[in-house]
Amino acid sequence: MSEQSVEKNVLEIKDKSELMIDLAYSSLLYDNKTIAKEVYDLEDLIDTIYSDLQRETFEQVKNKTLSVDSALTILKLAQAGEEIADAAQEIADVQLRDVELHPIIKLSLRESDEVFTRVQVSADSILCGKTLGSLKLSSETGMQVIAMRHQNRWLYGPNKYTIIDAEDILFAKGPEDGEEHLTALANATSNEI
Amino acid sequence: MSEQSVEKNVLEIKDKSELMIDLAYSSLLYDNKTIAKEVYDLEDLIDTIYSDLQRETFEQVKNKTLSVDSALTILKLAQAGEEIADAAQEIADVQLRDVELHPIIKLSLRESDEVFTRVQVSADSILCGKTLGSLKLSSETGMQVIAMRHQNRWLYGPNKYTIIDAEDILFAKGPEDGEEHLTALANATSNEI
Repeated sequence: MSEQSVEKNVLEIKDKSELMIDLAYSSLLYDNKTIAKEVYDLEDLIDTIYSDLQRETFEQVKNKTLSVDSALTILKLAQAGEEIADAAQEIADVQLRDVELHPIIKLSLRESDEVFTRVQVSADSILCGKTLGSLKLSSETGMQVIAMRHQNRWLYGPNKYTIIDAEDILFAKGPEDGEEHLTALANATSNEI
Repeated sequence: MSEQSVEKNVLEIKDKSELMIDLAYSSLLYDNKTIAKEVYDLEDLIDTIYSDLQRETFEQVKNKTLSVDSALTILKLAQAGEEIADAAQEIADVQLRDVELHPIIKLSLRESDEVFTRVQVSADSILCGKTLGSLKLSSETGMQVIAMRHQNRWLYGPNKYTIIDAEDILFAKGPEDGEEHLTALANATSNEI
């Protein structure tokens, strides 16, 4: 493992752990056990990355390519990410254990600073066949797609190369007025724009 | 405390703990101890809210206005938020302890799925004198303002009523192309639009 993969791993723990929080709350709001299980799988993945990172920092300190101070900082950041992932798993656990979420709590979660939404892309939506990157969905609507369902396949944490297809279901989070915009786009045909 | 304040407190722990993660990473990226200290203050606040919430759920269970199952779920969610807040504090700790962050890690954090940015609002920017809500900054650019500095005053987690003034410094996070848009707005005069 090179120095580059140390950074890559720190970044992956950061991004994945934050995605896990969003997925966990989405699983609660939409009573979705598939998403909740993904949070568990991501937690396993983060444990593996964290173990690799621990070994690699020691190897690099031994080889004098990393200072002890830098190694400690890197592990501290990674450990914080690992703890965030654990907390996300506890949130997903509420969904998986079939505990009925108090309806008022569910309602209240929707009034969060950032709302979660789920929209289905209509067959003739202008989003169809385009990548998230080319649509600039996130910067144009403020909504970040955190998961997608394409027929029976799921995709978590899509990137700019991910293509949106007709009938896909998008799970996203963002500001309240972004939700309306995204829903409008998912239902808008090119004739309407 | 009413049932309503139970939900309000769960939501506040959720929102504040996530804000803390963003502030903590911002403090690292911009070597900013003021923001890092705010993360510590928010952690104290969350501890207080969590204690209040624990007492209130027991009171409500005693009064039979809340079921034991609901009480357990509420505390589980709040505890997860409290753990996220602890992890955020550990990240801020790296900044406060004067540990030099490995420059490559810092660079790598900027390549995260969501980037952090800091922009100063020019004296004649079209943003001046407007509220975040009326500007729809978050849904128009994808950038969420997490902290603001107005002269020597700081504001963390601004809301839709927060007014942007000339020379304010905005700390925001969002997609990469949103960063360019926000920077352009912060420097654009009405004549340029």
